[in-house]
Amino acid sequence: MPANRSLKIGLVGTGFMGRTHSNAYQQVQRFFPGEAGVALAAVCSRDGVKAREFARQWGFGSHETDWRRLVEREDIDLIDIASPNDTHAEIAVAAAKAGKMIASEKPLGRTLAESMRMADAADAAGVTSMVWYNYRRVPALALARQMIEEGRLGRIFHSRFKFLQDWTMSSELPQGGAGTWRLDAAVAGSGVTGDLLAHCIDAALWLVGPVSEVSGTAETFIRERVHTQSGKRQAVTAEDASLFLARFANGSLATFEATRFARGHKALFTLEVNGEHGSIAWDLHDLHRLQFFSHDDDGKLRGWRSIHVSDGDHPYMKAWWVPGLQIGYEHTFVHQVADFLAGLRVGEKRVPDFRDGLAVDAVVDAVLRSATSRQWEVVEDVGSTLRHEGAG
Amino acid sequence: MPANRSLKIGLVGTGFMGRTHSNAYQQVQRFFPGEAGVALAAVCSRDGVKAREFARQWGFGSHETDWRRLVEREDIDLIDIASPNDTHAEIAVAAAKAGKMIASEKPLGRTLAESMRMADAADAAGVTSMVWYNYRRVPALALARQMIEEGRLGRIFHSRFKFLQDWTMSSELPQGGAGTWRLDAAVAGSGVTGDLLAHCIDAALWLVGPVSEVSGTAETFIRERVHTQSGKRQAVTAEDASLFLARFANGSLATFEATRFARGHKALFTLEVNGEHGSIAWDLHDLHRLQFFSHDDDGKLRGWRSIHVSDGDHPYMKAWWVPGLQIGYEHTFVHQVADFLAGLRVGEKRVPDFRDGLAVDAVVDAVLRSATSRQWEVVEDVGSTLRHEGAG
Amino acid sequence: MPANRSLKIGLVGTGFMGRTHSNAYQQVQRFFPGEAGVALAAVCSRDGVKAREFARQWGFGSHETDWRRLVEREDIDLIDIASPNDTHAEIAVAAAKAGKMIASEKPLGRTLAESMRMADAADAAGVTSMVWYNYRRVPALALARQMIEEGRLGRIFHSRFKFLQDWTMSSELPQGGAGTWRLDAAVAGSGVTGDLLAHCIDAALWLVGPVSEVSGTAETFIRERVHTQSGKRQAVTAEDASLFLARFANGSLATFEATRFARGHKALFTLEVNGEHGSIAWDLHDLHRLQFFSHDDDGKLRGWRSIHVSDGDHPYMKAWWVPGLQIGYEHTFVHQVADFLAGLRVGEKRVPDFRDGLAVDAVVDAVLRSATSRQWEVVEDVGSTLRHEGAG
Amino acid sequence: MPANRSLKIGLVGTGFMGRTHSNAYQQVQRFFPGEAGVALAAVCSRDGVKAREFARQWGFGSHETDWRRLVEREDIDLIDIASPNDTHAEIAVAAAKAGKMIASEKPLGRTLAESMRMADAADAAGVTSMVWYNYRRVPALALARQMIEEGRLGRIFHSRFKFLQDWTMSSELPQGGAGTWRLDAAVAGSGVTGDLLAHCIDAALWLVGPVSEVSGTAETFIRERVHTQSGKRQAVTAEDASLFLARFANGSLATFEATRFARGHKALFTLEVNGEHGSIAWDLHDLHRLQFFSHDDDGKLRGWRSIHVSDGDHPYMKAWWVPGLQIGYEHTFVHQVADFLAGLRVGEKRVPDFRDGLAVDAVVDAVLRSATSRQWEVVEDVGSTLRHEGAG
Repeated sequence: MPANRSLKIGLVGTGFMGRTHSNAYQQVQRFFPGEAGVALAAVCSRDGVKAREFARQWGFGSHETDWRRLVEREDIDLIDIASPNDTHAEIAVAAAKAGKMIASEKPLGRTLAESMRMADAADAAGVTSMVWYNYRRVPALALARQMIEEGRLGRIFHSRFKFLQDWTMSSELPQGGAGTWRLDAAVAGSGVTGDLLAHCIDAALWLVGPVSEVSGTAETFIRERVHTQSGKRQAVTAEDASLFLARFANGSLATFEATRFARGHKALFTLEVNGEHGSIAWDLHDLHRLQFFSHDDDGKLRGWRSIHVSDGDHPYMKAWWVPGLQIGYEHTFVHQVADFLAGLRVGEKRVPDFRDGLAVDAVVDAVLRSATSRQWEVVEDVGSTLRHEGAG
Repeated sequence: MPANRSLKIGLVGTGFMGRTHSNAYQQVQRFFPGEAGVALAAVCSRDGVKAREFARQWGFGSHETDWRRLVEREDIDLIDIASPNDTHAEIAVAAAKAGKMIASEKPLGRTLAESMRMADAADAAGVTSMVWYNYRRVPALALARQMIEEGRLGRIFHSRFKFLQDWTMSSELPQGGAGTWRLDAAVAGSGVTGDLLAHCIDAALWLVGPVSEVSGTAETFIRERVHTQSGKRQAVTAEDASLFLARFANGSLATFEATRFARGHKALFTLEVNGEHGSIAWDLHDLHRLQFFSHDDDGKLRGWRSIHVSDGDHPYMKAWWVPGLQIGYEHTFVHQVADFLAGLRVGEKRVPDFRDGLAVDAVVDAVLRSATSRQWEVVEDVGSTLRHEGAG
Repeated sequence: MPANRSLKIGLVGTGFMGRTHSNAYQQVQRFFPGEAGVALAAVCSRDGVKAREFARQWGFGSHETDWRRLVEREDIDLIDIASPNDTHAEIAVAAAKAGKMIASEKPLGRTLAESMRMADAADAAGVTSMVWYNYRRVPALALARQMIEEGRLGRIFHSRFKFLQDWTMSSELPQGGAGTWRLDAAVAGSGVTGDLLAHCIDAALWLVGPVSEVSGTAETFIRERVHTQSGKRQAVTAEDASLFLARFANGSLATFEATRFARGHKALFTLEVNGEHGSIAWDLHDLHRLQFFSHDDDGKLRGWRSIHVSDGDHPYMKAWWVPGLQIGYEHTFVHQVADFLAGLRVGEKRVPDFRDGLAVDAVVDAVLRSATSRQWEVVEDVGSTLRHEGAG
Repeated sequence: MPANRSLKIGLVGTGFMGRTHSNAYQQVQRFFPGEAGVALAAVCSRDGVKAREFARQWGFGSHETDWRRLVEREDIDLIDIASPNDTHAEIAVAAAKAGKMIASEKPLGRTLAESMRMADAADAAGVTSMVWYNYRRVPALALARQMIEEGRLGRIFHSRFKFLQDWTMSSELPQGGAGTWRLDAAVAGSGVTGDLLAHCIDAALWLVGPVSEVSGTAETFIRERVHTQSGKRQAVTAEDASLFLARFANGSLATFEATRFARGHKALFTLEVNGEHGSIAWDLHDLHRLQFFSHDDDGKLRGWRSIHVSDGDHPYMKAWWVPGLQIGYEHTFVHQVADFLAGLRVGEKRVPDFRDGLAVDAVVDAVLRSATSRQWEVVEDVGSTLRHEGAG
């Protein structure tokens, strides 16, 4: 792509993720003016009225109602897939064949097999891919990654990851439909494992390294819910809770847990990593803070530091306001686009691609296998290069 | 203004506040689509290159290098003043005379007399005015205001307000110039009193009510700094620290403190209000949280609640993402524009106007008088109606 | 035992636990004057000088150097075992045969078989027993228990328990000897599983209910250490870290983790329980606080409450100072003695007895089995009545 | 006093403070065995039954009902005054004349004149005195003091002190009597100024240095309460709230506030000190933690550290348990006795004496004067040597 022109985006999906991506494309041009521009070429939704309205509100130049039409359009460089999980593989494979760059929401496919088809298609076509593991772009987590790279934690012994929610605890909540397709495994592939644990696993692979084997268990607490399509009570096929123990290639141990039945937690994604020289901890409810313990501090003055990651020398923060003024959730998507554009500019991988997404999905797959087999399961080697991209 | 057309903005200033306002005008259209549109008509900076570049980056249709020219333009509805304090009064008075709506950064003028000229000019011309006390639009503070209106705190006995920074502690930092005009009282009017305490005072007037009298003291710790214009060491005329005790019309007491010499605090604006039935507390470093103590809770289970103000039933939050996902500093400006537009639509005052800004400046004036007289000083009655606007 | 005379204590062990127990016997008389007195009859240590000095410092009337002698003494009502784990079973069985009441530090024995011998001996002799699971007597945890009993959490879905330390991370630390016998499985039975996880498991059984099955893993990071007895490097036989997933009889799921390789944590025992109506969380580093989330709170005002458990209507706190003034670690032992004495007075079980200790050890046993078998293991039914004692 | 014998204590008062002192005398012997012993010789209360019962419970050898009798007893070395404020001066002066060492609760007298009589009497008689400013012995505050002495904060610019309570907010609460004599200025001398602010002032003098001048205000929110003696509603003479601004001799500024009308706070004594190189903060509700910000930390990793002051190299903590296990309120009194005994042993002042107490009372006096004069008031020079004692 010539440096002097904008990247033309074709977005599939007008839901929650459609909004976060669209905002990112708009804001990256204001706050990262050094990168190439982004042109919001077209948005696609099966509902034409919705598509037109979304295009108007978010500044897309046109709209489509069939993703196949979008993929065919010559004036589009990148197909961004923000529709439900059961559409990812088909769209991605078609986009790859059409020679488009592809961005996909996570998880890639509903199954490891689907995910592999997506990654293989991108590789076969030689197109650039990206998976939206946006939390890597939280400045505090990017700083955590820097610190680990700099050796400030030393050998890692332990880590723990949780993603706790409580929004599905009411038995009145249906399954299926716009807001609740995540409770239907036919659409989503799995429940919290692919939805929430996937974020935990991505962070673990990025910060700690490859996972060797896992022992997991899963549970569906409310076993029947009305399905919005049939209007009848049907078995819930997606798990409400998923927990596992992990052993990493570097010999460290971890606990992972995701659930939608943890009363009092809205979106509490938390992680902690304990190393020889220090530890870090973080949670999404106060995402601009990184907790850091340094064993190198003067003995009697050791304590966990709460770093307010909002200074100019913190990842991404120079682009925003002044020290002490926090940014939020949506900014992680802006950062991912900025890094993607920077990667295109310099010809380097700067964001997680489909191979990285596949590596996450391989752990998801092992967790779900273990929950059934009731034994430890080895994580399949999916050829992820784990080329760790830079941050900030 | 007809409901079916956009509000055309002419912005003066391309610094920190120029960016926050511009972002607000852009984002309000994506996230509050129910309000009238905003057209970024023109931006003005004395530096033509800077003006053109800013216009391009932020989407302004044109640029000017003389604010007088901006004020004269027929195609502009509202003049937004985001330039240093010594320019506010002159521009505002001219804009009022030209029949424009006016938005001004705070404080209004460098002195109470200047502020009065601005408020009187707006009133005389019958134009709508707004002052950017953006922190009222932090969702947690808007919720605090709702709670006080609902009587959840009952009679108020105490409050305390602080704004702590440490960015000027190095004696190497000069005064004057782009980043440091706030240290030069000739430009800024005062130091931390008008800059930081003004935010505290506005929150106090909004949450607690009118201040009757104050006893204050101020200090400049580093008394000489190189001035960027002269290149020589000159006396620093703006105070580094300003503290005062206050008595409110409702009989409650408060402490106020602002300083740029509080090591470890970047922008720690904090407040706490203690009432008969409950208390609330908040700080800008974790702006999405409101601390709330309810004496009405079951006796043995009483405790301070940390409310993560990110739900759909919290002020402004329905417009953004999903529960648990936080927004940041810049969003307060978006909310203020949204409320301003809603006010125009329904013909109500929904945001602080020049009379409200003047009420803040009257307290600032009393504090500075008291720091000199070393006695309690009565706050001048400036005819603020204190018509408290709605929030969220 | 007649109500009008003191309970005569014979203590075995003069280490860390010898001190905590002795302090409890002294303090219970000052702060719980309504209970029967306690007479510190004798203390026993193999080292006669140490025994005499300890007796003088802590107010024991006499000392012994052979625990058999102590068990035989007619003037002693209760044998309190605070010596290393490899002595528990033998002393307890002898004390039971001698008709003494018995208090034992936890875990009961080094193996489930040893623990069973202890519980069976106490039952066979019909003597009153007690195991020092002191953390049940932290006022905040006693309050948590009350809240669960009152139904404030409703059906429980999740819990998580951790006990994190970092004191053995140096490879220079030896094994064996006074401070480090816990690293030698021949003395301790196991590593962190019996030492730290046992506290987590006791809290889980007490707060959540019986555990059905577990899947665990364990690790020894530093595999050889100098043994203080041989002076040579020897294999470390006790595990440094132990993690497991649990399924409870009530259908809830949990993660458990204990380690001595979590940099930055000294004694971070933490727990969280998530129920249908609410959640509670607690940690030992701020033991006087209970975090509580109530879904019954007014929707927009929901948040985690930090309850400072120091009021007169909080468990045990009436006996101490005034609201807001915290107590500490040692007080949990005082409370356990107070409850034990109250139980004797009214003829009720008020503290965990050997059957309760055995129930913990059965989970420990299943965890260690699972760590070897790499499968889920069922927790053995040891006939614990789980008669839950009252608190406070 | 010969090194080989115990210090014989005669205690006046059997209320809250009588208990804290008695516990300290008991516990110092268990936990600081290296110091001289303490003999609880006699306790005095006007109520003979109460005196006898208190003596039995706390281990005093005898009891008295007239403090004059206690002062006369030859077998007593130290008179400890823990009775209401209106008794301090008379007892102290008599004890000094009798050649006894004297310990007094704070404030010394009801007025600065009374306090001066006490300090002068001790000096004239050449007897050792001590005032119970126990909070200096919180390990976290002793550590803060060490850090300031070591220069870790550098030049101090700001400090702030608060003591917030809410226990008198009900208008049903009477004045006078056992629990509420603090609301009667005839007994207490003043309200929160002498009761709560005195602790703040002592900490300020100890950590920051001498106060030069103050500007204060005070308020009584509930102006009439039933008096327990008359049974009638009477004017409340003690202030509910007291706030002041201070300027220190070192040029730093501070805010102080004490109130019993801050809903949600039980005993929230907090302080923060901001210096050139770092800052510290602390509060009584989590007394074992010290917050520390070091500007010397690596730039991007700066943050407030939460130091859990429970390690062996922290002040006083070696005497207690193991790292991570916290102590509480009562321990501050134990530490003060330990330091007092150590001071006697080595012939050095190690705890605050009457001159130090007088220095606090001089600030209290200036605050109350300023609240009336509505001007800044200079703090009287009372000849306090401010010989800062060591800690820990």
